[in-house]
Amino acid sequence: MEQTQFSSDFRLGILGGGQLGKMLLYTTRKWDILTYVMDKDDTAPAFQGCDVYFEGDITDYEAVMEFGSQVDVLTIEIENVNVQALEELEKQGIAVSPNARVLNLIKNKAVQKQFYQNYKIPTAPFKVLANPDETEVLEFPFVWKSAEGGYDGKGVKVIRKAEDLKDLPQSQCIYEEMVDFDLELAVIVARNARGEMRTYPVVEMEFHPEANQVEYVLCPARINLDISDRARKLALKVSEAYNHVGLLAVEMFLTKSGELLVNEVAPRPHNSGHYSLEGAVTDQFEQHVRCVCNFPLGSTESTMASVMVNLVGEEGHTGPVVYEGIEDIMTMPGVTPHVYGKKETRPFRKMGHVTVVAQDIIEARKIAEKVKSSIKVVAAE
Amino acid sequence: MEQTQFSSDFRLGILGGGQLGKMLLYTTRKWDILTYVMDKDDTAPAFQGCDVYFEGDITDYEAVMEFGSQVDVLTIEIENVNVQALEELEKQGIAVSPNARVLNLIKNKAVQKQFYQNYKIPTAPFKVLANPDETEVLEFPFVWKSAEGGYDGKGVKVIRKAEDLKDLPQSQCIYEEMVDFDLELAVIVARNARGEMRTYPVVEMEFHPEANQVEYVLCPARINLDISDRARKLALKVSEAYNHVGLLAVEMFLTKSGELLVNEVAPRPHNSGHYSLEGAVTDQFEQHVRCVCNFPLGSTESTMASVMVNLVGEEGHTGPVVYEGIEDIMTMPGVTPHVYGKKETRPFRKMGHVTVVAQDIIEARKIAEKVKSSIKVVAAE
Repeated sequence: MEQTQFSSDFRLGILGGGQLGKMLLYTTRKWDILTYVMDKDDTAPAFQGCDVYFEGDITDYEAVMEFGSQVDVLTIEIENVNVQALEELEKQGIAVSPNARVLNLIKNKAVQKQFYQNYKIPTAPFKVLANPDETEVLEFPFVWKSAEGGYDGKGVKVIRKAEDLKDLPQSQCIYEEMVDFDLELAVIVARNARGEMRTYPVVEMEFHPEANQVEYVLCPARINLDISDRARKLALKVSEAYNHVGLLAVEMFLTKSGELLVNEVAPRPHNSGHYSLEGAVTDQFEQHVRCVCNFPLGSTESTMASVMVNLVGEEGHTGPVVYEGIEDIMTMPGVTPHVYGKKETRPFRKMGHVTVVAQDIIEARKIAEKVKSSIKVVAAE
Repeated sequence: MEQTQFSSDFRLGILGGGQLGKMLLYTTRKWDILTYVMDKDDTAPAFQGCDVYFEGDITDYEAVMEFGSQVDVLTIEIENVNVQALEELEKQGIAVSPNARVLNLIKNKAVQKQFYQNYKIPTAPFKVLANPDETEVLEFPFVWKSAEGGYDGKGVKVIRKAEDLKDLPQSQCIYEEMVDFDLELAVIVARNARGEMRTYPVVEMEFHPEANQVEYVLCPARINLDISDRARKLALKVSEAYNHVGLLAVEMFLTKSGELLVNEVAPRPHNSGHYSLEGAVTDQFEQHVRCVCNFPLGSTESTMASVMVNLVGEEGHTGPVVYEGIEDIMTMPGVTPHVYGKKETRPFRKMGHVTVVAQDIIEARKIAEKVKSSIKVVAAE
């Protein structure tokens, strides 16, 4: 039979059971795809709703081999997985997307930056160091980034004077020139194994000034058509260079002089695409499943203008989570809250998001601000 | 704490684990609501993705009592439940929606029709009989309807001559005058316990000529604004008469003389609202959860024009299901298949649906026809 992915014995595996894995399950349930999820945390949000869950460490070779050998297609929801096992599973005939080659080119930021250089993809000037070094600095201020393990604003620090380099982890890192930018943009590219490619509209990310986390994502970005065209072309160039299967979220800076510089990429569903659950014809999670299962791609067009608001844990709150004000925001037009199902909140932990859809982006952005001031993620007293 | 529905110990129960229950889970997962599902079939689609499943007969008093006493809010996905148990559970403080009173007014078609008469809600002329009776017929042709247990075109028959009444079940039924109609329309009304009410746009149902099942649902219906206004007002009148909590799908005929006659209602998510998963700001399943949990209502507006195509089992096919051509329809713009997860197909069994969204209804309807001719639900060889 040809349509193996829709047959009852086809199995999809997901490494990681966080919120991205959980939202991938919306599609696997919709299509009744037998889905396996692996995570070491027995309260992982994606354990609820998968067919088979597997408690195990996704960074462990043996565990990933055991899990991966049970499925037909294997994907990830976080880059921090055992890549050696993925390489071996691919040799054994499992369709692994993104594969080991792509992950190796992405998960280490030094390698990622050098890859951009090799492919003449514009990116901020940088140098690679084995350890933070106070004698080899760039012009202040510059940005220190840990080569491995950075996530959600961790592993990144603005260095204003040599002393700021003290107390940083003694491990490989990059120093990057500070980019004088107007906006941070992102473009998600979808690509399946038969090489079909589509880009989602350019989105604009507004960051929280302190936590270095995205506070709002606006789709479409408030930019002109020329910039939008260039951003989508640049994202396609990056995607072609990686030759990945699955989604690739390409984050970029729009500099004050109008240049686009690639900041970093993620080979999976991405926070900058969450708006698509309500705002696009084919949401990014369905699109990722389409890609990795080698289905035809869905439309990346928007149905309405939308703004996504991240819900992160309030500062000073650690403990069982409460979404204060969630009913208030549900009275606002076009507002859909998403609760990730993590039981404990911590300062700045991603606990959910809210999508606002409206006829135009100005209106959506206004409502998003009301949402932001009405809801708080706190710990139960 | 006020927001009990978003606290971790709030429990929602659903009687019935079919496709409607399964699609309600999209929302309870999105909001991390602890969800219990009861069904006697251990392969019920909604057992996958709920938190607690309970194998039991939803028509059995003891079983429903045991299940219902474990939850805070109880709802249904099919009317054929033990109503006596619901009445008792309500007395014990469980929030049951729709409640026993509403279900008693709806699940028996004779009672339902008499209710319309009492509330001066226009409906086709009818009479009630204890058994099919060949001596007391209406003018031929007319419609026989079983008072209880009819579903998906079963329990309904056009009577062209007295002999057609032979071999019908010996149980309560109604004879209804045949309505000379132009279109069949439906309006879904959402109502929460604080009395907020909203109607979805009027949809148009196109029926399969033989199986008496809906083949396409079009949103918006191809009618003028006057008819649309009258249909929404009539649906609101029906909703107010029932004083229900949850969704109420109101099916009606538009007669050749322009009159609207209520055909029947369903107090739950309904096939005529499936389009809303892709075509509305707030889909009907989220809206039903909002209603029964007494949250504020979401927007019932459409994001795009949409047509829903029902996927039913092909005639002559019984056995393990295969969705032939599903990949072909996935290449069409704005097309989203839904697979219900029933393992066995049978002739005319509802096995899934497909939503088509487009800029206008004419375009969506064209694509829907292509979908219909490209996909077949058959049994594996």
